[in-house]
Amino acid sequence: MAVNLPPPDPAALLPVPGVELGVAMAGIRKAERKDLLVMRLAPGTAVAGVFTRNRFCAAPVTIARKHVRNAVRALVVNTGNANAGTGADGVARAMAVCEALAGHLGCDARQVLPFSTGVIMEPLPADRIVAALPRALLSKDDWLSAAQAIMTTDTVPKAYSRRLRLSGGAAAVSGIAKGAGMIRPDMATMLGFVATDARVAPATLRRMAQRVADRTFNCITVDGDTSTNDAFMLLASGQGPAASSRRDLLRLEAALTDVARHLAQAIVRDAEGATKFVTVEVALGRSAEECRRVAYAIAHSPLVKTAFFASDPNLGRILAAIGYSGVAGLDAGRVDLYIDGVRVARGGARDPHYREEAALAAMKKPEFTVRAVLNRGKAEAVLWTCDLSFDYVKINAEYRT
Amino acid sequence: MAVNLPPPDPAALLPVPGVELGVAMAGIRKAERKDLLVMRLAPGTAVAGVFTRNRFCAAPVTIARKHVRNAVRALVVNTGNANAGTGADGVARAMAVCEALAGHLGCDARQVLPFSTGVIMEPLPADRIVAALPRALLSKDDWLSAAQAIMTTDTVPKAYSRRLRLSGGAAAVSGIAKGAGMIRPDMATMLGFVATDARVAPATLRRMAQRVADRTFNCITVDGDTSTNDAFMLLASGQGPAASSRRDLLRLEAALTDVARHLAQAIVRDAEGATKFVTVEVALGRSAEECRRVAYAIAHSPLVKTAFFASDPNLGRILAAIGYSGVAGLDAGRVDLYIDGVRVARGGARDPHYREEAALAAMKKPEFTVRAVLNRGKAEAVLWTCDLSFDYVKINAEYRT
Repeated sequence: MAVNLPPPDPAALLPVPGVELGVAMAGIRKAERKDLLVMRLAPGTAVAGVFTRNRFCAAPVTIARKHVRNAVRALVVNTGNANAGTGADGVARAMAVCEALAGHLGCDARQVLPFSTGVIMEPLPADRIVAALPRALLSKDDWLSAAQAIMTTDTVPKAYSRRLRLSGGAAAVSGIAKGAGMIRPDMATMLGFVATDARVAPATLRRMAQRVADRTFNCITVDGDTSTNDAFMLLASGQGPAASSRRDLLRLEAALTDVARHLAQAIVRDAEGATKFVTVEVALGRSAEECRRVAYAIAHSPLVKTAFFASDPNLGRILAAIGYSGVAGLDAGRVDLYIDGVRVARGGARDPHYREEAALAAMKKPEFTVRAVLNRGKAEAVLWTCDLSFDYVKINAEYRT
Repeated sequence: MAVNLPPPDPAALLPVPGVELGVAMAGIRKAERKDLLVMRLAPGTAVAGVFTRNRFCAAPVTIARKHVRNAVRALVVNTGNANAGTGADGVARAMAVCEALAGHLGCDARQVLPFSTGVIMEPLPADRIVAALPRALLSKDDWLSAAQAIMTTDTVPKAYSRRLRLSGGAAAVSGIAKGAGMIRPDMATMLGFVATDARVAPATLRRMAQRVADRTFNCITVDGDTSTNDAFMLLASGQGPAASSRRDLLRLEAALTDVARHLAQAIVRDAEGATKFVTVEVALGRSAEECRRVAYAIAHSPLVKTAFFASDPNLGRILAAIGYSGVAGLDAGRVDLYIDGVRVARGGARDPHYREEAALAAMKKPEFTVRAVLNRGKAEAVLWTCDLSFDYVKINAEYRT
């Protein structure tokens, strides 16, 4: 299962000067698997992030949100345990990890950002993480290895790079992400890290982080469950050329967006049990907000998602979802609906020229687009989502057993 | 599958004087099954209803909403086809059925309420329904048979009665409902009809209908998919004792609520693929609205629902759902969580005395209660829902094939 692209080619993943990666097996939840990642940053690296809006945000998120204001020197990421729903004890354990790493690096614990992913509401085995830190610091790893060390139910590591030409020379952008369930980012996804050696002012990077997240990780949903641990981080080490002219900044933002979009889509492609990768476009609405509302209603409907799974053009379910999405004053009698190029409904009712075989052929493909046209404005929105299959239920019913 | 109570005992279902039931096989979608129900009402019967808020409401809903203001003489209900997403042609077909029935009964088509349930966006075979009307009118059926004639993916017919003592004598309350998927009523459920022979003023009945729906059918959810065809109707034929004193009205409303709650819960018990019947209570919130918001977030989370299916006390998923429910200013650090009598979380973190085996034992039962205490006010809300199983996916992936 899954609609993955071919796995990342290690040779295509670019090192980012100023960002050193180290991975270790800490035995956090399972023995003999990479579950700890340390990212060391050159002095002067600009760091910006967006974090989950879930009110039960995890202890590491609380800390990272605070520490990101400082001169960050390292990120430490564990899988196997989310350190969420753990109260004050969870904060203390995450801080113990930051302190131990700061001790090794000769910096302050407030210059370390912690990230965790895995089971919620179980105590973080901080002692095992602390014990494994020296091994992670000695290890010289690449982005592929880093991507592997943060996987949970992911079936493939998610990493992507691209080269970028700025006026001062070539720069690299590399990123990793993880996530396959509990995915409906509300700021950012489970965990996404994108690094560049380009030099960019911290305030500029912060604004970029929000815009990049809004156009990439904030446009995916698997199951509508916003995680407690979502975080998306941009790192700019400044070891490469500066991005200071308007043209350079536009190029850099485009490259960061490109890498982030690839990673965000990779999460949906590897969504738990997914057999279909579906783009949901909503056009000609009054506002982007209402278009997103309609798109989420479609993308979250279990009935729509099971119809995707069955390649069943039972498309009245999509109309029903549009109808209950809660858009004030929506005139159902003006809505058009398409599957790829096939017009299914026109003016809110079945298109007289519609032939079910045409929609069936589109839906049998592993990737297709659902397009709803509201015909009441000029705004639009796009989301990427997947189907709801037997395997989603199986994976989530058996996750902890 | 399903968490049904034993099937209704025909002997316990009370006839309601003034309400005549007739059932026929019209071959709407499948041959040789009861798929058409006509309810004939004595002159003077008070009728009140609440209808779906889905913007793509079906043609029959549009018509019934209008006709319910008149002196209603009959209801006609078909299964197998929802007549939704069918535009002006769908309205014409539903009106053709109303006109044919009015012709038989010697009344006006505007005194007939049509209801449809089944597949969306396919043309209603009105000719087959019209041809079957005489057979339905000749047939003398009971509530069990009526309940059978409106089933779609339901595995059991849903009917319930109770007797009621008013100051003027005994009255009967009988009701039927259908629905197993596309259930998150927003006004009312798929189809629910509750009739009494008590005499009650139409305006009083209308107010009662809203209150009864809000406390019963509006408190259930299977998959969060608000149907295009939801309708809940109260019929009071006036052939029995009058309910006019305050005390009588309270008794009548309590009896109607009791029957409606039984039917609403019966829908959840028979929900597509359900193996668990779960009550979600949210207490000590600032408003009933925010309590309902939290309860729906829990009840709609695919991760929570698959954990129910697995009897897996992976209860951090419930905290996560509370956290993203969107309640402004919610302090996660004050939330307590219980499964039946077991306190799982206290002050937003795992209760130190919590033993997972205790929650596991509760969740292994076919029925249990999830209780979230927000500790920030005095309001509360309750919902009834079910788990998300393999069979939900199977049923909905194969519904039309």
